[in-house]
Amino acid sequence: MPSEQMKSIFHRKTEQALSLGYTEPKGTLYLRETICNHLKTKGIEVTPPSVLIVSGGLQALQLISLGLLHKGSTIFHETPSYLTSVNVFQSAGMNLFDIPMDNEGVKTDLLGRLKRQHNGTLFYTIPSFHNPTGILMSNNRRKQLLDVCSKERLPILEDDVYGDLWFEQPIPKPLKAQDKQGLVLYMGSMSKTLSPGLRIGWLVGPEPVIDRLSDIKMQTDYGSSSLAQFAVAEWLASGLYDKHIIHIRKELKDRRDLTLHILDKYFSEVATWNNPEGGFYIWLKLNVKGSMDKLFKKALKEGILLNPGNIYDRNDSSHIRISYSYATPKQLEKGLIKLAQLIKENRD
Amino acid sequence: MPSEQMKSIFHRKTEQALSLGYTEPKGTLYLRETICNHLKTKGIEVTPPSVLIVSGGLQALQLISLGLLHKGSTIFHETPSYLTSVNVFQSAGMNLFDIPMDNEGVKTDLLGRLKRQHNGTLFYTIPSFHNPTGILMSNNRRKQLLDVCSKERLPILEDDVYGDLWFEQPIPKPLKAQDKQGLVLYMGSMSKTLSPGLRIGWLVGPEPVIDRLSDIKMQTDYGSSSLAQFAVAEWLASGLYDKHIIHIRKELKDRRDLTLHILDKYFSEVATWNNPEGGFYIWLKLNVKGSMDKLFKKALKEGILLNPGNIYDRNDSSHIRISYSYATPKQLEKGLIKLAQLIKENRD
Repeated sequence: MPSEQMKSIFHRKTEQALSLGYTEPKGTLYLRETICNHLKTKGIEVTPPSVLIVSGGLQALQLISLGLLHKGSTIFHETPSYLTSVNVFQSAGMNLFDIPMDNEGVKTDLLGRLKRQHNGTLFYTIPSFHNPTGILMSNNRRKQLLDVCSKERLPILEDDVYGDLWFEQPIPKPLKAQDKQGLVLYMGSMSKTLSPGLRIGWLVGPEPVIDRLSDIKMQTDYGSSSLAQFAVAEWLASGLYDKHIIHIRKELKDRRDLTLHILDKYFSEVATWNNPEGGFYIWLKLNVKGSMDKLFKKALKEGILLNPGNIYDRNDSSHIRISYSYATPKQLEKGLIKLAQLIKENRD
Repeated sequence: MPSEQMKSIFHRKTEQALSLGYTEPKGTLYLRETICNHLKTKGIEVTPPSVLIVSGGLQALQLISLGLLHKGSTIFHETPSYLTSVNVFQSAGMNLFDIPMDNEGVKTDLLGRLKRQHNGTLFYTIPSFHNPTGILMSNNRRKQLLDVCSKERLPILEDDVYGDLWFEQPIPKPLKAQDKQGLVLYMGSMSKTLSPGLRIGWLVGPEPVIDRLSDIKMQTDYGSSSLAQFAVAEWLASGLYDKHIIHIRKELKDRRDLTLHILDKYFSEVATWNNPEGGFYIWLKLNVKGSMDKLFKKALKEGILLNPGNIYDRNDSSHIRISYSYATPKQLEKGLIKLAQLIKENRD
């Protein structure tokens, strides 16, 4: 993370004043304007009143849970899903409902039927570099998804926190870019591309919805830090974001390549996996029998913290989420080689 | 607010690295250490594990509401009270219960009796420069309060966000400094002394309580911005805080003096008031009959937003909270002279 570059933001000559007072309820106008410019590069055309600055994805989900949904509502999501791993909606008394995926994303044919049968109120999706599977939803599937949701009047919550992290070629436009009916509520964040510690994200949607969520945000924490908002706005406006993201893509791609190389060499006997085109994750499927619980404990003893599949899908007992974003290449290599050995020893 | 000085924080040579990753759950160790040093100057001796960094007073109340209190609990507070003006506890299904004050603070003799009769679970107090009355609790009263609460086993939530804003002489030590039994949960913040936009405050209490609140904080927003935490730590550690607070005290005192001067000149016929020794507020008592509602509307038409007493005490119909902290001296003068005129015109 570019701490020194971040510090340099505060030396930069800029026409924008750093204001340390309470910010506008939706976040500083300066940051919301730079976010709008940033979103334009993805085909999303919005103006600052449709943008709410939040502290990140988790707070976005919390605000939606508090401000838009009712107890007992049913939230649809891909299976497996990041949503299952956080407790936001469940602890607010809502039900989660699994929709299966294939390699192109959520199965839209099932989505329509299940919506009618189970009365879903919202579909949560990570179309680009899905957590935990790394799947990139195809453009065709995106169109189908929008069609189905429009027909069934099922609002979409699009979580796009990994969308800028493609490796070799740009990806299909976000759902929000193709949303003509105000069906999509869109979440973005700096946590995956710049710094999780800044705690700056954004929610984009129809203005009355954003107004409502902004009220809740003010009642929760009086808005996000003006210092962090200023830093992110300058980061985007100065061009440092664009430079940094090129660097991050290369770093992540190198780690993905290293990870795939190690998987090929040590895991081909015991597992299969996907080749992600961006993002943080490989979804490793074990093809050997053996207790995941025991494997988890053995790995922990060796200093390896596994993310087993059942965090993301209660019924899963055969997957492990591999994240190549955090550990150093050396740690990755050492940990994965050890893991392969443990999987083999753990076979029934 | 010292925006340029705040920027200079990021040029400063320091041994502390700016880390942009997720911070420790309770906040960065560096900030918690500097807060502990800061609290030592007030007689509060604590270590970093007893300190949780929050986004300000409002979030502190939210975390306490979510993590420590049950639906149906009764929260005691001074009358009038800031607590009545925010909706945190009420919207979580708790009851608020009024305890009267005099010029030395809350009436501790009543507090003990009412605790037994009405089973209060927590007493919320602003002992120093109380919002909205400006009252400074005497040292004697502080001792009595601690005695009563210890005897009745009534935990105290001490809101000390104005404590550094004394004008002429230092004030009695916080309740927390005299708390030998872990009875006091203590709140502080940078919002009133440095900048509301930074969104940095702190909660100090017994370690198991802080552990619990820290868990809730992580589930809410994954912690406060590391950038803002770094800035506040540097602000304190560099000595800029101490310099700035001397400046702020002088500025505030000048405005209080101006306000008292205008009150003497224009309000003595229609109102009485206190002379605050610090903080932001004068609690103006109107001695003439007339509808507060009508006065509010007339003032609004003139561009003056009144804070009438019933925001802080449902049964109050005769007070207005005057804050001399925000408006410029010119605005203050103009607004107050107009208000005096409106009060006279509004007489029944």
